[in-house]
Amino acid sequence: MSVLIKNVLLNDQVQDVFIEGNRFEAIGPDLDASAREVIEATDMAVFPSFINAHTHAAMTLLRGFADDLELYTWLNDHIWPFESKLTYDDIYIGAKLACLEMIKTGTTFFCDMYWHMPATLRAVSEMGIRAALSSVFIDFNDPRKAKDFRARTRKFFREKEDLDRILYTLGPHAIYTVSRDSLIWISEFAAENNLLINIHLAETRKEVEDCVKTHGMRPVEYLESLGFLGPNVAAAHVVWVTAKEMDILAEREVKVVHNPVSNMKLGSGIFAFKELSNRGVCIGLGTDGCSSNNNLDMLEEMKIAALLAKSSSFDSAAVPANILEEDLKDYLESAYLDPTIFTAGQALECATVNGAGIFGLDMGKIAVGMLADCILINLNHHTLLPRHDLVSNLVYSASSEAIDTTICNGRVLMQNRKVPGEEKIIEEIKNWENRLRTTT
Amino acid sequence: MSVLIKNVLLNDQVQDVFIEGNRFEAIGPDLDASAREVIEATDMAVFPSFINAHTHAAMTLLRGFADDLELYTWLNDHIWPFESKLTYDDIYIGAKLACLEMIKTGTTFFCDMYWHMPATLRAVSEMGIRAALSSVFIDFNDPRKAKDFRARTRKFFREKEDLDRILYTLGPHAIYTVSRDSLIWISEFAAENNLLINIHLAETRKEVEDCVKTHGMRPVEYLESLGFLGPNVAAAHVVWVTAKEMDILAEREVKVVHNPVSNMKLGSGIFAFKELSNRGVCIGLGTDGCSSNNNLDMLEEMKIAALLAKSSSFDSAAVPANILEEDLKDYLESAYLDPTIFTAGQALECATVNGAGIFGLDMGKIAVGMLADCILINLNHHTLLPRHDLVSNLVYSASSEAIDTTICNGRVLMQNRKVPGEEKIIEEIKNWENRLRTTT
Repeated sequence: MSVLIKNVLLNDQVQDVFIEGNRFEAIGPDLDASAREVIEATDMAVFPSFINAHTHAAMTLLRGFADDLELYTWLNDHIWPFESKLTYDDIYIGAKLACLEMIKTGTTFFCDMYWHMPATLRAVSEMGIRAALSSVFIDFNDPRKAKDFRARTRKFFREKEDLDRILYTLGPHAIYTVSRDSLIWISEFAAENNLLINIHLAETRKEVEDCVKTHGMRPVEYLESLGFLGPNVAAAHVVWVTAKEMDILAEREVKVVHNPVSNMKLGSGIFAFKELSNRGVCIGLGTDGCSSNNNLDMLEEMKIAALLAKSSSFDSAAVPANILEEDLKDYLESAYLDPTIFTAGQALECATVNGAGIFGLDMGKIAVGMLADCILINLNHHTLLPRHDLVSNLVYSASSEAIDTTICNGRVLMQNRKVPGEEKIIEEIKNWENRLRTTT
Repeated sequence: MSVLIKNVLLNDQVQDVFIEGNRFEAIGPDLDASAREVIEATDMAVFPSFINAHTHAAMTLLRGFADDLELYTWLNDHIWPFESKLTYDDIYIGAKLACLEMIKTGTTFFCDMYWHMPATLRAVSEMGIRAALSSVFIDFNDPRKAKDFRARTRKFFREKEDLDRILYTLGPHAIYTVSRDSLIWISEFAAENNLLINIHLAETRKEVEDCVKTHGMRPVEYLESLGFLGPNVAAAHVVWVTAKEMDILAEREVKVVHNPVSNMKLGSGIFAFKELSNRGVCIGLGTDGCSSNNNLDMLEEMKIAALLAKSSSFDSAAVPANILEEDLKDYLESAYLDPTIFTAGQALECATVNGAGIFGLDMGKIAVGMLADCILINLNHHTLLPRHDLVSNLVYSASSEAIDTTICNGRVLMQNRKVPGEEKIIEEIKNWENRLRTTT
């Protein structure tokens, strides 16, 4: 399989990009190459496709299901009861819609944690994109549940099929849903099997308060005390962390996934972008699931990440825990509001190279030898003109409609905004919706 | 001119909508009506089109021109020098791109303040949408400039042509760019001629500090002391206001325009949505100009307005001014972060009926007798499925690609996402860009 992208804008220069198999093979002006598939890309620019570093794909099914609620009400009274009824088939359909939406918005890799993981795996395989997949691990401190989960995890990794485009990870849900023993077990199992761990961490103030009550320390300190933290941990949210906890995360080279829209929508808190990036922490970007976003659009996520950091550049997370009251007002006035931080370029890095760094992928750059994952954007789209600064236009202005083509692993998944089979997926979702209406 | 929209979803019911001239004439299932233009709208829903209550249309030309900078550096060193070179022709082209972008994103009315207003007027007239237009009034405390501006304003309103879809307003830029005398003059001129006034107010902390230094009081108090405030004033931004100032705004029935993206991007501050709406203030929504946003997409603006309010529901504006230090920590902890405020429904109200309220328009509702301004959204678009809650999907999930049709004043301006003449506008912008590159 080979693809030749002709006359595309890359690094301010019109070039050709030649893909052989699943990697970029050659890049330059007027390449002397012939390919099975030629894309004439005049008036288009090529960018790395996006990496959605934390989501729950099948939660597309819960889009708009329970909005404008507090996190624990939302989880306990709405989301978890609904989810408990979802079958393999439901999740397969929901994940297919998610994959479609990601292809349409330029994402070719996502990190997922959910129920019925094989259903999501099947959707990803069929749709042609990449994913890091984990079965959500929740034992609610019940030793029987823990035992069962561990047995299932062992069995899964013994028998798993190695598939192209699929990375298997471990998915302990959070410190308040997984027992101490299981967290230790997961950490050891990950070390033995060289696996990434995907966990929600320090998402809400309640999580911190409960952790302090139960364990006498804060969430990051607790995981550190278990020997859990390391470069193989991708921690999502990480909103309520003190300076000391941020130091621990930096020292252990924990990867952090920022979910600005979800944190804002659920009122979870404000991510300390400046403080974490100043410590050199690798920060990826994720949409979280559709029920707390309510879409999977990384263009939107990049913009909102930058806006949020600029408008709340103080370390809100540290405020209640660290600062003396007499210092607080000065602290707020000096540190609060800074339009110069989290630039468009940094947002794009979070959504591409940083995500690749988290998952150890040869992605995030258009360069020879890298995996051939990219998007072509239509430079004549109204949101991309005039072109004083293409990266700024992409991050702050572009709508996903400006993404003409999405390529993953050397295969064209969308061209001229058409994804083969999309009408069928839409029909399947509508049928699912009708079944839901008639059974409830 | 008549348009019949067949089988469209409205208020959870499939209905027909009949437009005669520029108003909705009849609404109901299976209407017995014949029209010159019939739109088959199965699998579409009809919503009021959006009202962008504060923008600077031609600033599309400055999209991405100077990002990630502090407001006064941005204005003084980048925006104003660039703008001083813009000609009538430039602004006409920029405003056409803005109108195109608004039609594509479902907006049919915008309130504008800019230079070379007749150029924007021409663009609006040709593109078929509506606008409230004002020439920006800036005298920098120079009596000669003030005299000149007043003479020009008088002349304009004496000679102005009354045009369909155009509302003329007054546009004093801000209290720091317009002299005391001119503000008083404008207020009186508005009263005599029954005009709306469009002004930037309390946008930054610096504006407050400078006002206190110069006038011994805060911006809203200053305007109140001049007798300036009334129901005909649409104040944009209104970020740095104390409880006392909010009381004044409510009492005088001043209309407020929230610009969340611009306020976040420039790090201007956090709008006190809860406190102002609790006082019954009419709050519209605006994108501000493209150089501080960087687009004109009201779908995005609605979502970000809600997210911002949920994640910063304390009155940050009041914090430095009002709260005793010993109360601050409690205040933050109690008032900060509330996912239940600024619901999807409220966001939609801000962008439709509230905007109509500000400008006295029969818009913002799909009802017999109202102006026939509406959008048709494609219910099969991936961002709108499944449909647990259509308003939530529109506000939190939809991309503008889901807007199929835009109708203004009974005329179909976009159908199947095509706006007649759009390629020509894109070409004109690219030519403008090329001229800019060769002359600088």
